[in-house]
Amino acid sequence: MSSTSGQVIRCKAAVAWEAGKPVVIEEVEVAPPQAKEVRVKILFTSLCHTDVYFWEAKGQTPVFPRIFGHEAGGIVESVGEGVTDLKPGDHVLPIFTGECKECAHCKSEESNMCDLLRINTERGVMLSDGKSRFSIKGKPIYHFVGTSTFSEYTVIHVGCLAKINPSAPLDKVCLLSCGISTGLGAALNVAKPKRGSTVAVFGLGAVGLAAAEGARIAGASRIIGVDLNPRRFNEAKKFGVTEFLNPKDYDKPIQEVIAGMTNGGVDRSIECTGNINAMISAFECVHDGWGVAVLVGVPSRDDQFKTHPMNILNERTLKGTFFGNYKPRSDIPSVVEKYMNKELELEKFITHEVPFAEINKAFEYMLQGDSLRCIIRMGA
Amino acid sequence: MSSTSGQVIRCKAAVAWEAGKPVVIEEVEVAPPQAKEVRVKILFTSLCHTDVYFWEAKGQTPVFPRIFGHEAGGIVESVGEGVTDLKPGDHVLPIFTGECKECAHCKSEESNMCDLLRINTERGVMLSDGKSRFSIKGKPIYHFVGTSTFSEYTVIHVGCLAKINPSAPLDKVCLLSCGISTGLGAALNVAKPKRGSTVAVFGLGAVGLAAAEGARIAGASRIIGVDLNPRRFNEAKKFGVTEFLNPKDYDKPIQEVIAGMTNGGVDRSIECTGNINAMISAFECVHDGWGVAVLVGVPSRDDQFKTHPMNILNERTLKGTFFGNYKPRSDIPSVVEKYMNKELELEKFITHEVPFAEINKAFEYMLQGDSLRCIIRMGA
Repeated sequence: MSSTSGQVIRCKAAVAWEAGKPVVIEEVEVAPPQAKEVRVKILFTSLCHTDVYFWEAKGQTPVFPRIFGHEAGGIVESVGEGVTDLKPGDHVLPIFTGECKECAHCKSEESNMCDLLRINTERGVMLSDGKSRFSIKGKPIYHFVGTSTFSEYTVIHVGCLAKINPSAPLDKVCLLSCGISTGLGAALNVAKPKRGSTVAVFGLGAVGLAAAEGARIAGASRIIGVDLNPRRFNEAKKFGVTEFLNPKDYDKPIQEVIAGMTNGGVDRSIECTGNINAMISAFECVHDGWGVAVLVGVPSRDDQFKTHPMNILNERTLKGTFFGNYKPRSDIPSVVEKYMNKELELEKFITHEVPFAEINKAFEYMLQGDSLRCIIRMGA
Repeated sequence: MSSTSGQVIRCKAAVAWEAGKPVVIEEVEVAPPQAKEVRVKILFTSLCHTDVYFWEAKGQTPVFPRIFGHEAGGIVESVGEGVTDLKPGDHVLPIFTGECKECAHCKSEESNMCDLLRINTERGVMLSDGKSRFSIKGKPIYHFVGTSTFSEYTVIHVGCLAKINPSAPLDKVCLLSCGISTGLGAALNVAKPKRGSTVAVFGLGAVGLAAAEGARIAGASRIIGVDLNPRRFNEAKKFGVTEFLNPKDYDKPIQEVIAGMTNGGVDRSIECTGNINAMISAFECVHDGWGVAVLVGVPSRDDQFKTHPMNILNERTLKGTFFGNYKPRSDIPSVVEKYMNKELELEKFITHEVPFAEINKAFEYMLQGDSLRCIIRMGA
């Protein structure tokens, strides 16, 4: 048992006081974990679009002050009552969605959308008592998606922690706690391209490139990357993307361009932008008879997915996926092993690295659109 | 070789001279089969909605005079050049869509949408020479979907004929050449409900009831039938339907009613009406995480399938199927064996039977909405 167990820990956290304003490194109090909770010392975290989206808080119910962050790697400091799967010293990845192992979703082989611990972006408190474990001078600071990894210590439900190989470098595998697993799993678990097949990937950010990486690992022979930003193509080549299409370069729908290049359509497509038109194109660009389109990107509230039903009737399949269909606790440890076995490269996703004190730079890199992932070193 | 081989055969056929007008039994000339074609003596045929739809010819390019009919069983009379798979005397089911065995679709394990012989409702002639094999006093009478089984003899591309067990009773297994296989395959090949699962079937005509039969065979524990016609329920019970919902009885969308009955949604749904609102309901009524919706019914030209993309993102799957994903020549013989092994009952689909001379009664029964299948006995 660590000496801090059962005590409030004072440490540094990056607090977002207001929507869209730079986060501020503050000294916060982190309460001990309650039943089924774990307090984790975060060593590395990275910034994902979802953090930025809720930090900007456009068109959402704002929840501030709040500690963002959900892609991270850390070490268990102490555990609450009833936690038997984890002990102090275990290496863990916090996951923004959980696995209670008891609900219908957790018991289904097909779903990872746990009823109890499914992502909730509006809740800023812990499930058990509806309270925050973070405070500044007694005033609560809200959690984000149950992880709040922009803090040297955080409290997380045990169902939202994947216990991983302690020899895995946390400054690399922290990326597997959100975006990279999402894209990789969309390809390997859901689209499942066959060896030699053609795959279109819409959106060449980190998630899309991870989907391309998954398609490459599965043996796809052509990987067509679609993005509005032509600067993305050079980077994308490292991830197996063989051809690049910018919809702005064509005066017909990109699905028709793709059909023309592929004798009627690609075998698989993976949509990683969240743009509704890209979703429709991703569906309509797959081949009739056997094509499978997988949607990953999160849409806006008022979007409508529209297509002529004959596009469906002609034996196309449309599937959605969430976190790459990985069950956080059951499956993520094996994704870490893929990195350890050198099946999966993570280094190429890391374009920037900053000390925790400079966390606002990570926001700037992402907003400029040129970074894939920026690793934030805690305690530095 | 039969004595008629290579000769024009004069026989009776039911000719549709005009859209929506009773068909007329006429003496027609049936030319010998050309290369890759087979002339078949039809013994039993039945009437399917698709015949009626194109006979009514509302909003289509009318193709008349025409011989309809595509659900049937017969015996090979003679074969054209290059036909090696079939010989006179073989028992066959004509299929409205074909299997060339050479195109990308035929070579794909997943597709049955043959490039060469895929259903074409507008073509009224044979593929090889663009001519009809039917005439009356030298004036051509058009074919329908390559089968035209409302004739004592017809000429069919070899790729559109399934060679079946000669001991199978053609007055029963003729039903497998279209609707019943379509519904059955949608359940067994595409929706694939697990033992003990819940299935919703939209539309309780012959195709929907065949889908219910497939769900029953697969071991579904609850089969919820949805139809606007409450008279359908009693019949539906014979096909394993356990609950009946009439959307007219509710003031909220039927997908919400189904979700309420099933703790969030059914495991599988199968849409067999072609109505766009039923398609959307069928998709939205499946459970998130693992639900699969299968569309079977053919939509109207101007329909749009619309749904909020989060319904997809939440790990639902939407698939379309055509002819139950069965490959006509490779798979239909084994469906006939399912009947022979008593796994599948066909008798309960047969509500009426008429001699060929009274074929217009079959149209009336279907238009009245009370028949499932009416068997038409040829040569009587």
